[in-house]
Amino acid sequence: MPQTPHVEQHFTAGESVRDVVIGMSDGLTVPFALAAGLSGAVSSTGIIVTAGLAEIAAGSIAMGLGGYLAARSDAEHYASERKREEMEVREKPEVEADEVTEVFQAYGLTAEESAPVVEALRKQPQAWVDFMMRFELGLEKPDPRRALTSALTIAGAYVAGGFIPLAPYFVLSTARAALSLSVLVTLVALTAFGYVKGRFTGAPPVRSALQTALIGGLAAAAAFGIARAIS
Amino acid sequence: MPQTPHVEQHFTAGESVRDVVIGMSDGLTVPFALAAGLSGAVSSTGIIVTAGLAEIAAGSIAMGLGGYLAARSDAEHYASERKREEMEVREKPEVEADEVTEVFQAYGLTAEESAPVVEALRKQPQAWVDFMMRFELGLEKPDPRRALTSALTIAGAYVAGGFIPLAPYFVLSTARAALSLSVLVTLVALTAFGYVKGRFTGAPPVRSALQTALIGGLAAAAAFGIARAIS
Repeated sequence: MPQTPHVEQHFTAGESVRDVVIGMSDGLTVPFALAAGLSGAVSSTGIIVTAGLAEIAAGSIAMGLGGYLAARSDAEHYASERKREEMEVREKPEVEADEVTEVFQAYGLTAEESAPVVEALRKQPQAWVDFMMRFELGLEKPDPRRALTSALTIAGAYVAGGFIPLAPYFVLSTARAALSLSVLVTLVALTAFGYVKGRFTGAPPVRSALQTALIGGLAAAAAFGIARAIS
Repeated sequence: MPQTPHVEQHFTAGESVRDVVIGMSDGLTVPFALAAGLSGAVSSTGIIVTAGLAEIAAGSIAMGLGGYLAARSDAEHYASERKREEMEVREKPEVEADEVTEVFQAYGLTAEESAPVVEALRKQPQAWVDFMMRFELGLEKPDPRRALTSALTIAGAYVAGGFIPLAPYFVLSTARAALSLSVLVTLVALTAFGYVKGRFTGAPPVRSALQTALIGGLAAAAAFGIARAIS
């Protein structure tokens, strides 16, 4: 049976997994597709390695910093909404008490049935604010250390993912040969990543594996086609 | 005062805005940084346009399809948790009733104070399941049409954002000249986008403008430095 401490723990682990998934999904896909696209337009691997590394730097910084600021702004949003609820509980307790009644009315409860809860909350303002944050506004208290962890996890996963499709271009000298090996290595990596992702997120692992490989394959095919058409 | 319908509407608008922000943040940043990086390594704009368009195709497909699958998996997660709650309410009502009491205990309410709510919910199993989904598990019912809308919004915003930093490379023939114009145009676009994003998300607009320009600038500088160092 799920209980609050258990759910909380699950939620935190879920956020790290989500960050790895966000970073690695794009890290495996975009540098792969970019390298494949350039392989359709140039024959030397030198420029592809340069473009690939520039993309990994740009993508990991953009996603990591983006994740940092998103987590920060979630925390600020929570703090400002909490301050507003605290003021409303202090200055307009009657209005807030009616809002508690309305929350329960949405679930078919009459004002009489929810009255004991309303009365009990009025006696403890801090718990009342906690209640409003979660049940009226649907907001969870964010972890203050989350912004930095989130940024580093996303960026690290992006870099780790990005080096896999690029590795063949470091080793082989012709773009076409490197492309074939990159397609092979990356489709294996995408499939394995999709499978593990499915295990963690509760999606059917085999379907998750196929979907993840499909996204990477489609993105690479589109990039290849466009680069080929204009070069 | 916030009321349930108002909050719902705000939430839906918030999701479209969030999708545009996700797509455009990366669309403005990564192609900009990649083009800047390649400008540090090659002198002709032809290869930069090819790489940039390949990146826009890859990035928009990867992010759009990623958003589609994320929304789909949210909807499936909600449906499977709901099925489990429905079974539990039907087959183990005593255990579920205790869980409602525990939810309220976390807010300092005694079992006696929450008893009328527990009794009222027992009389209406559907409302009880709704209550458990939101208050025990913290899950909102996802909009079924959201996956496709989300995918198209993210991908469209990525493409729209990506053409801004790339435009100077279409027009000018030397990479250095195009880079200067691209930096200028893109920093203006990032600043304006950050400002508007701040207005929509409730963050201070000027700070949001500066942060957004900073992410793009850092990503581009890192990509430029890396491409320069290895070429």
